[in-house]
Amino acid sequence: MKNAVIVYYHPYNGSFCHAVLEATKKGLTTAGFAIDVIDLQADQFDSVMSSADLLGFVKHQMIDEQAKQYAQRLQRATELVFIFPIWWELMPAMVKGFIDKVVFPGSTYEYAKTITGMASSLPNLKQTTVITTMNTPKYIYQFVFGNALKKAMISGTLRKTGLKKVKWLSLSGVKSRTQAKRENWLRMIEKRMAVK
Amino acid sequence: MKNAVIVYYHPYNGSFCHAVLEATKKGLTTAGFAIDVIDLQADQFDSVMSSADLLGFVKHQMIDEQAKQYAQRLQRATELVFIFPIWWELMPAMVKGFIDKVVFPGSTYEYAKTITGMASSLPNLKQTTVITTMNTPKYIYQFVFGNALKKAMISGTLRKTGLKKVKWLSLSGVKSRTQAKRENWLRMIEKRMAVK
Repeated sequence: MKNAVIVYYHPYNGSFCHAVLEATKKGLTTAGFAIDVIDLQADQFDSVMSSADLLGFVKHQMIDEQAKQYAQRLQRATELVFIFPIWWELMPAMVKGFIDKVVFPGSTYEYAKTITGMASSLPNLKQTTVITTMNTPKYIYQFVFGNALKKAMISGTLRKTGLKKVKWLSLSGVKSRTQAKRENWLRMIEKRMAVK
Repeated sequence: MKNAVIVYYHPYNGSFCHAVLEATKKGLTTAGFAIDVIDLQADQFDSVMSSADLLGFVKHQMIDEQAKQYAQRLQRATELVFIFPIWWELMPAMVKGFIDKVVFPGSTYEYAKTITGMASSLPNLKQTTVITTMNTPKYIYQFVFGNALKKAMISGTLRKTGLKKVKWLSLSGVKSRTQAKRENWLRMIEKRMAVK
C-alpha cells in the first residue's frame, strides 16, 4: 500500500503554502497514493505541552488524545510530507507543537543503541519531505541564520529519531518572486511527488 | 526606573527552569528592579496565529488581546529575560508562539532603513538575556545542530528587530550534571542578575 500523510499548517487558505499543499496532493494522487492530510489549523490542535503531557513523555505514554490519533495515522504512512511557512527563521508554534507532542518515545520512536540513541517506530515510512516557504533569501538563511530549520528539524528531530531519506525542499524569497516562478515551483513539486 | 520583564515557560513547577526563574528574580530584586513575570503557562497563552492575527501582522495591528497586553508590558521593560527549556533543539511551541504573536510590526519593532530592515520600538530596553536549559551537550548542540536557537532567536529575531546587548546563557547537558553543578549555575545566575 502507498499511504501518504501530509502534515499541513497555514492559517490562511489563500496562501502560497496552500497552493503547495494542492500541488503535493495532485502529484501524490498521480503516483497512486492514498492521502491523509493532517490539517493542524482545521483540527485546532492544542500545540502546548501540559504538565501531564510532559510526565507522559517521561513514562513513554502519550496523554493528548489528538496527538495519539496523529501518531496512529503516522504508523500507516509510507510517505510523509510536512508543508508550512517559516516565520522568524523557524516553523510556526503550531508545527513546533506537533513535534513536541507527536514525536514521542514509545509512539514514533524508541530509545536504542544507535548513534543518536533513538530508532524509528514508524516501520512503513520510506521517505519524508519537509516543504517550507520563506521570504528570507536562500543565502541569507544559510549563512546568517545557519539553516536553523534544517539543523533543528531535519537533523535534530526527524533523522535523530531514526527516519531515513529525509529531504528539505526550501522555497525562499517567496514574496519577491514573480507569479511565473511560483507557478514553476508548483509544477516542480507536483512532478516530484508524482514519481514517488 | 529599573523594570525587568521575565518571559517564562515550563509546564512543570518542579523543573530546573523554575529554579532558574527563582534565582533570576532573586538577583534582579537585589539589583533594585521591579519585576514583571509573564508566565505563559499560567496565563494559558494561545500560542497559535489565527488568520485574523496574520492579517493583523500585515496591517501592523495586533488582534490577540493577551498578545497586545504582553507588548504593552514589554514597552515598560528596561531589562528583558527569557527562561525556557530547549526541546528538539528549539524553544517549545509556547515560546515560539510568543515570538510569532508578540514580536509584531507597529508594536515591538518598526520597518526601517537599517541593515536588517527593522528598528526596535522598545525604547527603554537596555539588555536582553535568553536563558535556556537543554540535555544536549554543548559541543553537540554547536557543531551538529549549529546552535539553532542562537541563530534563529538571538540573531534572526531579537537582534534583527533592533535589540542591542542580547545575550544567550545556555545551560547544557542538564540531566547528566550533578546537583552541585546545578546549584553553582543558580548562584552564578543570581549573581549575574544582581549586578545589572
